[in-house]
This record gives sequence, C-alpha cells and structure tokens, in this order.
Amino acid sequence: MEGLVRCPANHVPLTPISFLERSAKVYRDATSVVYGDVKYTWSETQERCRRVASALSRLGISQGDVVATLAPNVPAVYELHFAVPMAGAILCPLNARHDSSMVLTLLKHSRAKVIFVDCQLLEVARRAIDLFNKAETEPPVLVLISESDGSVPQHPSGIREYEGLVASGSSDFEVQRPHSEWDPISINYTSGTTSQPKGVVYSHRGAYLNSIATFLLHGMGSMPVYLWTVPMFHCNGWCLTWGVAAQGGTNVCLRKVSPKGIFDSIARHNVTHMGAAPTVLNMIVNMAVDSRQPLPRKVEVLTGGSPPPPQILSKMEELGFSVSHLYGLTETGPATYCAWKPEWDSLPSDQRSKIKARQGVQHLGLEEVDVRDPVTMESVPSDGKSLGEIMLRGNTVMSGYYKNQEATDKAFEGGWFHSGDLAVKHRDGYIEVKDRLKDIIISGGENISTVEVETILYSHPAVLEAAVVARPDDYWGQTPCAFVKLKEGCEVDAQEIIEFCRDHLPRYMSPRTVVFEDLSKTSTGKIQKSLLREKAKAMGSLS
Amino acid sequence: MEGLVRCPANHVPLTPISFLERSAKVYRDATSVVYGDVKYTWSETQERCRRVASALSRLGISQGDVVATLAPNVPAVYELHFAVPMAGAILCPLNARHDSSMVLTLLKHSRAKVIFVDCQLLEVARRAIDLFNKAETEPPVLVLISESDGSVPQHPSGIREYEGLVASGSSDFEVQRPHSEWDPISINYTSGTTSQPKGVVYSHRGAYLNSIATFLLHGMGSMPVYLWTVPMFHCNGWCLTWGVAAQGGTNVCLRKVSPKGIFDSIARHNVTHMGAAPTVLNMIVNMAVDSRQPLPRKVEVLTGGSPPPPQILSKMEELGFSVSHLYGLTETGPATYCAWKPEWDSLPSDQRSKIKARQGVQHLGLEEVDVRDPVTMESVPSDGKSLGEIMLRGNTVMSGYYKNQEATDKAFEGGWFHSGDLAVKHRDGYIEVKDRLKDIIISGGENISTVEVETILYSHPAVLEAAVVARPDDYWGQTPCAFVKLKEGCEVDAQEIIEFCRDHLPRYMSPRTVVFEDLSKTSTGKIQKSLLREKAKAMGSLS
Repeated sequence: MEGLVRCPANHVPLTPISFLERSAKVYRDATSVVYGDVKYTWSETQERCRRVASALSRLGISQGDVVATLAPNVPAVYELHFAVPMAGAILCPLNARHDSSMVLTLLKHSRAKVIFVDCQLLEVARRAIDLFNKAETEPPVLVLISESDGSVPQHPSGIREYEGLVASGSSDFEVQRPHSEWDPISINYTSGTTSQPKGVVYSHRGAYLNSIATFLLHGMGSMPVYLWTVPMFHCNGWCLTWGVAAQGGTNVCLRKVSPKGIFDSIARHNVTHMGAAPTVLNMIVNMAVDSRQPLPRKVEVLTGGSPPPPQILSKMEELGFSVSHLYGLTETGPATYCAWKPEWDSLPSDQRSKIKARQGVQHLGLEEVDVRDPVTMESVPSDGKSLGEIMLRGNTVMSGYYKNQEATDKAFEGGWFHSGDLAVKHRDGYIEVKDRLKDIIISGGENISTVEVETILYSHPAVLEAAVVARPDDYWGQTPCAFVKLKEGCEVDAQEIIEFCRDHLPRYMSPRTVVFEDLSKTSTGKIQKSLLREKAKAMGSLS
Repeated sequence: MEGLVRCPANHVPLTPISFLERSAKVYRDATSVVYGDVKYTWSETQERCRRVASALSRLGISQGDVVATLAPNVPAVYELHFAVPMAGAILCPLNARHDSSMVLTLLKHSRAKVIFVDCQLLEVARRAIDLFNKAETEPPVLVLISESDGSVPQHPSGIREYEGLVASGSSDFEVQRPHSEWDPISINYTSGTTSQPKGVVYSHRGAYLNSIATFLLHGMGSMPVYLWTVPMFHCNGWCLTWGVAAQGGTNVCLRKVSPKGIFDSIARHNVTHMGAAPTVLNMIVNMAVDSRQPLPRKVEVLTGGSPPPPQILSKMEELGFSVSHLYGLTETGPATYCAWKPEWDSLPSDQRSKIKARQGVQHLGLEEVDVRDPVTMESVPSDGKSLGEIMLRGNTVMSGYYKNQEATDKAFEGGWFHSGDLAVKHRDGYIEVKDRLKDIIISGGENISTVEVETILYSHPAVLEAAVVARPDDYWGQTPCAFVKLKEGCEVDAQEIIEFCRDHLPRYMSPRTVVFEDLSKTSTGKIQKSLLREKAKAMGSLS
C-alpha cells in the first residue's frame, strides 16, 4: 500500500534479548539477581551477558550454534538465557539430574559446541565427554561454573571457568539479533526422553510472546521479586527467565529446593511471586510446623507440571499463599491457566480448590485450546464428562522437534498440537485434565482417570504422596494399582486405603492393590509413573 | 533447520482480533461495555462485532477497504474497533470535532466506503457527503448510530442504522484474519492536519504489541474498569480500545467529558483506571469543591498528549488519584512513560510531580528512544541540559503515512522516527520534553522552552490555563508571549504575571507580553498554539 514501509524504524524481530536491553535502561539500578551474598543490578546483568556473549563469540560460537548447560538454578544459567542468544546461538539447558550416558546422548544429538557445567556436576559432564568417540565427533568445550563464593572443586588445569569468560569478554560486544524472529532460541529436551531424544525448539518470537503471557497470567506487575524453585532447564523456567527481565523483577536463585530454603528466601528477599511444581507445594504443606516462618506478605504461587491435588491447594491457602494453576507441556511452555473469576471467591475452600485444580483457558499468547476426539478431530461437548484429547494452537507452540521431522509432523497433525492429555470441558469452557493418554486405566471397558483416584488418595489424612497406574488383569483387562507414601509417624494398611477409596469413588475406580513405598520423581518433581507401571506389570494379574 | 515447521498449529498473524476472541471465552460473562443503562458482556460484544462484520461484508466491504467513524466515545465506536478489522477492512476514526469540509477532505483521501455517524453529528456528515462530486467519486454509505435509549434524530428514511446492522448480521460470520500481521488495521489522521492530510497507518502487529505495552505501563491487571475520557478516535484511544479487551476489562463509555460525569462514573462503576489529557486533569482539579464526590478507591490515571504541569499532578494526587505519565505521537501511539522508581516515593510532593512530568523511558513494545541531534544524528549527552530531537524506533511505530511516501521517508530518515519534539536526557536516561521543534522560542540567540515558562505560569495561584508562543521582535528576533486564562473570580494584571515569572525564571525567558483570554483547544484537549502564534504574529514587534 502506498506510503507504507518496513524499515529499522518500525521493524525489529521479536526476541527476549529486547527485554534485557530495555531493563538495563528502565530498571538499571534495581536488583536483577540475588544468590546467597551475590547481587547484581540490571545494568550489571546486561554487561555480564554481553561479556559472556563476546567470549562465546571468541570461542568460535556463531549464528545457529548450540550451547548447552548442565546446572541447577544458579545465576550463570540465568545469564546464559540471554548471553547465548546474544552471541547468535541456541541455548540447550540439560536436566541437571541426567547421568553421563544421557548427557552424552543429548550432546551428540544437539551437536552442542560448548557446555557450561556446575561445579557439583563436573564429574558427570567429564565422564560424558570422555565417552565421545573423538574420531567421529568433536566433544564440546567445557566451561566450569564455580560456586558463588568463588570456590571450585579440584579440577585439571586448563578447564575454562565461567567468571573467567565474564572477565575476558568485551562489554562493547555488538549483540547479535536474530535474522528472523522465527530463528531458534532454545532446545529443551523432553523429560520423557528415551532412545529417541525429542528436542523441543522455541523460536525468539514464541519465547517473547510466551514470556509476556506467562508473567501476565501470574499477575506480575512491575518489579516483582521471583523465587526460583522451577528449574530453569525446564521449559526455560516456564519462560519466566525472560519474563522476569521483561518486568524488571528480581530473580532469587536457589541451588537446592527445600521448604526451609523457600521460607528463608521469602523472608530475606520479600518474595512476591514464585513458581513451584505440586510436589514442592506438597513439601511446603507437610513441613514441620516449627520450622515454618510467618510470610511477610501474601506470596503469589504459580503451580503446574502435573495436576495439583485440591487438598494441597487448600492447605497452601491456609498458609497464606495465593495459588494460581497453569498447564502446559515442554512443547507449548505455559499454555492454559485457571483464570480466576471473582464470583468464585465466596465459595467454600474445598470447592475453590477443586475449581483451581482445573487447567482452565488459554493464556494471552495462545490462540486456541480445545478438547477433541483424536480420531475425528471433533470438539467434545462442554458437559464436564466427555473425554477427549487436549489440542492447542498459537504462536507460543514450539517450532518442532529438532532434527525429527516425523515426530513434528505427527504432533501437528490437522493444524493442532496434540498434547496426549485426556480432558473434559466444563460448561464454562474450562478444561480439566483427567489423565495422560498413556496413563488412563481401562477396566472392564470403563475409563478410569488416575488423576481422580489420586485426588481421593491425597484427601486421606495419612497419605503424603500417591500415584495410580494400571495393573494387568486377566479378567478386567486392567485394574487400578496405588503406590502410596505415608506421612511420617502414620500407620494405615492397604485394606483401609481401599475402603477409604470405595467410600468416595465408584467401586470399579477404587484401587485393588496398594503398595507402600517411596515414590521416585523426575527432576521437575513429577512422580515417575513409567517405573511404577513396570512394577505393576511385574506383579501379574490379580484375578 | 530440520524438524521445524511454520503451520497453523504454531503460527497466527498477531492481531487485536485475538484479544476479543479470547475474552469471549475467558471472560465471557464479565461486563465488557457500559454506557448509561446499556451493558454488554464479552460474549455479547463478540457476537455483536461478528454481526456488524457480517453486515459490512454484505455491504460489499472486503480486504483492505476503509471504514470511517465520526462519533464520540459511544459503544458502537468501541465495537467497530473489532468489527471493521473482522470484516478484513481498515478502521478510520475521524475526529468528532471536524467540520464538514474537513470530513469531506478525509473521506476523499481515505476513500472510505462506509461512514458510521453519531446521531448528533448527522448534519456534519450529510453536508460532507452532499459536497461529493458524484461524477468523480462515489460517496461512502452512511450508517447512523442512534442514542443508547434507541432515540434517533429526525432523518430521511432510507438511512441505515447501526442497530439494524447488528440485527441483520450473522453471528456465524467467519471472521476475516489479516493475511499478514503487517496489514493495516487503522488510519488515524493527525490533529495537525492542514492542506495535506497525514493518515497514520497502524498494522495489526503494531496495534497488538502497543495494546499490551500500554496496558502494562498503565499497571492494568486482569479485569480493570476503564473510564473513557480519551477519545477513541485519538490513536485508537491510546490503543486501549484493544488493550482493555486483552485484559477482559470493562469499558465505561462517556459521550461528553465533564468533571461531574467523571466523578459520577467512578462512583457508579467502581472505576479502577482512566486515561485523561492534562486539560481534563485541569478540569478535575479546578472543579467546584462541593460537586466532587469522594473516590471509592484509588483511581489509576494515565495522562499524556502534552506535558502535564507539575502543579496539576500534585493536586490530582491530593484528590486521591495516582497519576502516571506517558508520551507519544499519533505516529507512535503510546511510546514512553515515566516508569516510577520506588526511591522516589519518599520525595516531597512537588519534587515527585516534577519527576512525574518527565516523558521517561520506552515502554515494553518500543525498541529504543533517544534524544539526538537532528542533523548529525548523534546522541546528546545525558546531562539534563543538552537539547536534541526525540527519536524512536520499534515495532509499535506506524507503518507510514497513507498514500504519502515522501512524508513517510522523511519521518523515517536514518532508521529512526523523528518526533519533532525537543528534549533533554537526564542522568538516569529519562527524557524530558522541552518543546515542539516548531514551538521553541529563540530570543537573542537563546533557546526558550515554552513548556518551562508554562510550568511557572501554572504555578501562579490565579492561573487556570496558560500557553506561551513566540512574538516576532525586531531586536531580539522573538520574545515570549503568554496567553492566560484566569480562574473564576481572580483578578491579576499583566505586569503582576510578568513579575511573577521574573521571580522564578531568567529574565530573557519571562514573557514580555501577557494576553488574558479563553484558550481554544483541539478535540484531544491540546491548546491550539497555531492560532495563538498567528495572534502573536499579528501583534508585530515590541521593540
């Protein structure tokens, strides 16, 4: 159209790099990052990131190269969320709980050229690098992240150190912007990784829009104080690594998540917002009363990653936390949330928590979420009963799986991202997850939502943690099998648990088997159901 | 890169239409618009907009056509901000104070195919349409917007009515999305329009990003209650027409802006946020004490459009309003704001107001703002003294001037938008407007900021409104000439005003001439300095 142009005055590719550049001006003297006694301002963070980008560039990193991290939530990982893209490269944050062979697989798959490794994980990384067949592929350069007090573990001389890169880099470095906003900014390997790693790729555009949508659904105004318990290697910390920068907030870093560490950080830094998986909420509500501290103010908590048991939500509220609930997968980042309606405020606490446990509606950055029949692609009725698969579409959905076109095409069949989660739609359009497609139990032809059974188990006063999986059955096909961890000092037997479930659920939904044991979890706090499924399978048929 | 795709699952052109579609789900039963006794919910607003889009489509409107409005802030204009783009067309909201010949000029320039006209402006529009040379150009179809009670002025039969379109349109209409997010969504003619109209074009992308940035800088959380005193025809209501939809807020419409109307609306609808030009703030602080009502809560006020005198900001605070200050031009929409720093809270009120009157730093959607020498393009030092021109760049800057390539190219010279505003940069990087490039007075070789002189005039207890322009002078070149309106019942003479200024300003900056009169304003509340400049010119030299 005549008179219109697209030029540097009115066109900049969307990228989270802009958030940092702006905060270094708007919030320049405000605290950006705190960790123990370490404290930076936004202008310092910008300078440090530029220096690291410059040092990466000198190491030969350029447009489209991959840079990995293997570390918990320390300041370096926060900085690398900006420094790596500022060097034109793609960030690949590896799960800090991976073992050497997994790290090796992912380094090979991603072809990372540099890996930043936390001092406590040096051995894992070095073993992985030693396993490289150097004739075939050059292993990545290892950069060590030392502890905040500057101490480093014994290590062979010649290994580069992170603070050394910061010191050697140039603060005048010309920041590389993406050529296109569709260029990749990060690769997040899904936690369900097995033989075929799935590397979820986010674009600069998707990351920018998802950061905004997520700080909005979390109700973050200007200059929040955000406590990190969600791993930054998990969906880039739900995109809030970038989101906190957009709002000029303070990032309170925590190496190890513990209830005491959480309460201490809240009191010391006057935390306003935090994210936490339901397992972390469970830790908080079950901590010893005498080690709690009173909250200096109401803390907004965003939970997600797995459906939060309503009992835990109620107890969090009693402690003075205000909990919101989001839903998403690695492939989408945060995507939906239970947008709260004022009329729900007056409901009794247990009803509020039941509603709050719903996955809700799409956030501002997502175009549409629906529950559909995975075969016909037809929308299920909004009746709170009809099961279907959650499907999503919009600018915040991943660009695809890195180097796996087949998996990408399958995930995007019919123009929607297929979540693999089973849900219902309530009359008001809010969705509620009933199960993972692969977790659902089919007993005598009836669908059993393991989430519903687990919700009942969590309401038993002696139950600390619970997970339900299918046990194979010659007669019924499958029956529900519950794995339960009891609270300290509690004693209940299997029969009592089964009776309790029968009092609250239809008989066919109640567990037939109850096993008491510690439940092992993934680093993101999810109970490892795949292990439990194997155990239940090994038990054989009950009938 | 292998494995990545761009498909309907992960790519949707950015458009404010998405805000409405989402709010109709997330906030479906919440109030979207109130106006007198008229009240709609977000699902109703969505349905009404779809119906109007459908009716427009039946009238032959399609991709790229222009649809104009001539109306104050009534619900129809709000709806048309969505309905017109939903028909694939471009909205062109005309200033409701234009006369027939101006309306004719703009209808011809924009080639609008339909014009929606408020019942009280029917005669202006009809006279404009009668002036069309029908052999040359087909005049637009006129659609009448009736009053909220359904009453319409006498008019010839055969004229279409807005509510008739709503009723006849189909709610199943398939909403047209932009083919590209760079497609135009609106044309806003600048208020400085003379012989060559300048139609500022916003893209869907720019509008989307500016809406978000503006509700963020205004501190709007979820479900705000927003009072409309800023005309929706002015930068699309600072982009908050779309922005309020993004946050599922309530739009409180007001046909005519008066202090009583404002206080009544705040009390009746529990208003949380409002926008208002400094003239409107002046009206509020100078209204009779006995017609004020106590505010039911703190009301967040966003002011902008011209530099707000600090005295007015202080008085607004005393009344219980919390004022933020934004800066922008039609070409940029909201662009910068005086982002508040917590450490300023403890300053005395007059210092707070002085800081608050600064134009500040870029909002989230703008990439960069700077003060530069317009010739060398060099950045001026951050010393609070060196004058330069404000220049801006980023995705929220206009796409250009409609059908005026030359003006577009000039405005974007060197990859920045040239604002024509003179400013300084303070040490913290915050900018402060000193004058319009064309308003600055040069007296004996010294620059005089008319804004600084006006600030002193506003601090005089008898002054209600003030404007300073250049009076030609044979000796000095120019001298400052003040036009002043006194508060009711106040009596002061010119000499006293001049003495007062000399007490607070260097002698060369103090007005040599003071004229007492009513100051005429543009519809957006700006004092019409061009008229005053002509008057001062006609006075001739003082020396």
